[in-house]
Amino acid sequence: MKPRRILIIGGVAAGTAAAAQARRSSPDAQITLIDKGSDISYSACEMPIYLAGEVSSADKLVRFTPEKFAATYNVEVLTHTEVVSIDTERRKVRITSGPGEKETSIPYDALILATGARAHVPDGLKSASKDVFVLRDLEDARQIAQTLDTQTIHHAVIVGSGYVGLDALESFHRRGIRCTLFASSGHLLKGALDVDMSDLLVSHLGDLGISIRNDRVQSLDVAPDGSIRSVHTASGEQTGCSLVLLATGTRPNTALGEKAGLKLGPAGGFQVDTHLLTSMASIWACGDVVDFTDGVTGQPLHAPLALNAFLSGRVAGQNAARGGTGRPARMKKVVRAAAVAVGGLEVAHTGWSLESAISIGLDAVAVTIQSRSAASLAPNNPLHVRLVAERTSRKLLGAQVIGKEGAVQRANVVTSHLRSGSTVDDLYDMDFIYAPRLSPLHDALLVAARALQKDL
Amino acid sequence: MKPRRILIIGGVAAGTAAAAQARRSSPDAQITLIDKGSDISYSACEMPIYLAGEVSSADKLVRFTPEKFAATYNVEVLTHTEVVSIDTERRKVRITSGPGEKETSIPYDALILATGARAHVPDGLKSASKDVFVLRDLEDARQIAQTLDTQTIHHAVIVGSGYVGLDALESFHRRGIRCTLFASSGHLLKGALDVDMSDLLVSHLGDLGISIRNDRVQSLDVAPDGSIRSVHTASGEQTGCSLVLLATGTRPNTALGEKAGLKLGPAGGFQVDTHLLTSMASIWACGDVVDFTDGVTGQPLHAPLALNAFLSGRVAGQNAARGGTGRPARMKKVVRAAAVAVGGLEVAHTGWSLESAISIGLDAVAVTIQSRSAASLAPNNPLHVRLVAERTSRKLLGAQVIGKEGAVQRANVVTSHLRSGSTVDDLYDMDFIYAPRLSPLHDALLVAARALQKDL
Repeated sequence: MKPRRILIIGGVAAGTAAAAQARRSSPDAQITLIDKGSDISYSACEMPIYLAGEVSSADKLVRFTPEKFAATYNVEVLTHTEVVSIDTERRKVRITSGPGEKETSIPYDALILATGARAHVPDGLKSASKDVFVLRDLEDARQIAQTLDTQTIHHAVIVGSGYVGLDALESFHRRGIRCTLFASSGHLLKGALDVDMSDLLVSHLGDLGISIRNDRVQSLDVAPDGSIRSVHTASGEQTGCSLVLLATGTRPNTALGEKAGLKLGPAGGFQVDTHLLTSMASIWACGDVVDFTDGVTGQPLHAPLALNAFLSGRVAGQNAARGGTGRPARMKKVVRAAAVAVGGLEVAHTGWSLESAISIGLDAVAVTIQSRSAASLAPNNPLHVRLVAERTSRKLLGAQVIGKEGAVQRANVVTSHLRSGSTVDDLYDMDFIYAPRLSPLHDALLVAARALQKDL
Repeated sequence: MKPRRILIIGGVAAGTAAAAQARRSSPDAQITLIDKGSDISYSACEMPIYLAGEVSSADKLVRFTPEKFAATYNVEVLTHTEVVSIDTERRKVRITSGPGEKETSIPYDALILATGARAHVPDGLKSASKDVFVLRDLEDARQIAQTLDTQTIHHAVIVGSGYVGLDALESFHRRGIRCTLFASSGHLLKGALDVDMSDLLVSHLGDLGISIRNDRVQSLDVAPDGSIRSVHTASGEQTGCSLVLLATGTRPNTALGEKAGLKLGPAGGFQVDTHLLTSMASIWACGDVVDFTDGVTGQPLHAPLALNAFLSGRVAGQNAARGGTGRPARMKKVVRAAAVAVGGLEVAHTGWSLESAISIGLDAVAVTIQSRSAASLAPNNPLHVRLVAERTSRKLLGAQVIGKEGAVQRANVVTSHLRSGSTVDDLYDMDFIYAPRLSPLHDALLVAARALQKDL
């Protein structure tokens, strides 16, 4: 019997998880992993730590070099290799090592798309300046770090207010670089944080000398030598700077699959079933490029998070390897939950903000409370909680937590409740631990649940 | 119509919560709160902070003085008053201000027993020495603090290894006092921690110079002037010391109710229904003196925790005030979850340990794993997790978490899962937040869930 040929496109979190799982599921399969870059199997989420200068080399973020991955999992690894097209009828892909280079074909029995997402830059901000960056892959991080290590950056401008922007802000700030972040409408982590929580964060960052500007950067002023001079904003302002990071969002890399006829889901990634099979036979997809199923609403959800990439890679790898035999692996529902460490604060969220819940038509209500991390007689820090629930069903929809400590884990507590379909009353019935030096009698989540009960 | 007479015996957490709620529920009721001590409405759990010398006065732990409580809630408050007997037929109690003092009667329409628990001292260790203490009420704490403030304590011996013992240990250690703690079988927090987790803690405390001895203190050697000289142990050892704290357990104060014919539950407190009505008409009970219902097993459970005292006090107060009208309040099921800060560690547990689960006949399995509080490239601390589940149903039964940070909140996450009847697979499906500086890709609970899945 001919060994099953499994082809995986994309070699970061989801792709390598898929390849490793395919190998575990099928000792005999012929597995090929293709990536257009030079790095595979690295921790993209840890790039901010490297940028902050706290890790000596980008190599520390690499779990497996291509060679080591190939040897460990008995997988053929092709880096610097781009897939040009997928022939779903003949089950082969055309690859090339670059524009103008020769194209060759690789056949497959099972194909896994783990093509991830790319940085999105608005047309007006596209620039060849050596001082203007995006932060998407490890090579981006290397170039930024080299600039930070070799040039004096008197002022860094960050355009965009999502997780990438705030992570970069934290990295630059830790290096002692003066930073200005431009956020359209002045709203940080829009979609994750409601505006009152964002305002708290903006105010805190302001106290640290970090300027968050409610303005839109429209164009860049680049000197003839390629160095950045300033950014120009919608309000007519001109802000001098020596480095610009464009954190203006990401887009799932669906083009290759779309060209081959794969259907997209409503949230922008590939439409997949619970086994992560796409709309085409023998093609699975995983990671940032698919729509998962929301554990709160049951609706398709784009949730480009590392843990989802890892878990979905394993599911796709197992199912691609089984070839119709055995029980297929299923991808779980996911709750969108994330956090960032910025300016000495933990900023965490889970599920739906009020604004995002209303935007999908839910009749939602929210409260924001301030509490503390421990009993008042013990050293403690303020803890801000915003809790969102559906009005009639009283079901929890999400939470946002900001504090010096304990915010992430409290968001995890709410995620547990979101997964089990809890109401705000279930949360109020929780046996939160009271240990005066570690947590107050009425935990911040309990205080928030009580306040929301009164509003419902 | 004559106002309803509500009588509450016991004025700490449960009793004051009951009185306040009774007043909110019934503006007209005639409410009397009786306590045999001089203090009411204080935070017993914060006494260790006071003992550590971090709070200037015991008064800071008092939320309401008797006078202030009386004025705020329009409640008659009788301190230094002991209830001698309950006449359930005539619905009155006999009270006295002390042995040999005159007895008088107070009638009631509704009676609430919030008599709490008392320190239990084995016969051989009972002592009138001025240097030998228990730590149960605020007066105990005042006396210990006075001794610590006015005498040089070169060595403190703590007898007992429960929460009270560890809290006192932490307080004395923070004052720079050399401490030895005697634990039968050397097992700290037996019932809450399994032995391997206890061993971790013993080893950590040993590194700080705190001696945990696997030995039983059998007698005390007191000098003629009433000062302590040493303790004598079962193994024949004699340990010199200048202060002894007896943290040898507590017993619910059920005697008064038992004498009146109230039934006890199997866990040692009063048997109550979900409305906290005892086996006698018109008598409710709340706080440390009742058996609640375990949220994990559905069985009666003694869970003397501040939050339960507070919540059950509110339920009892509301039901005592309603007098058969309106919808009765219900006490929720409870999960036994607690923590202590000791030696720079958070030590937290929730639900059932393996040992305690087996002791009630459950077919339980457990794993212990070591993980870390954040990603490996970021500053992080070890985090130890023990997870317990039922073998066949795979239902979670409990967890124990020890670490410099994040232990309490992770126990809270598991409590959420215990309350919803989750399996270990549900915990593995959790969307734990990954933010490298704040939490690793695979949270310690995820690692523990995975390890337990493999064992099941």
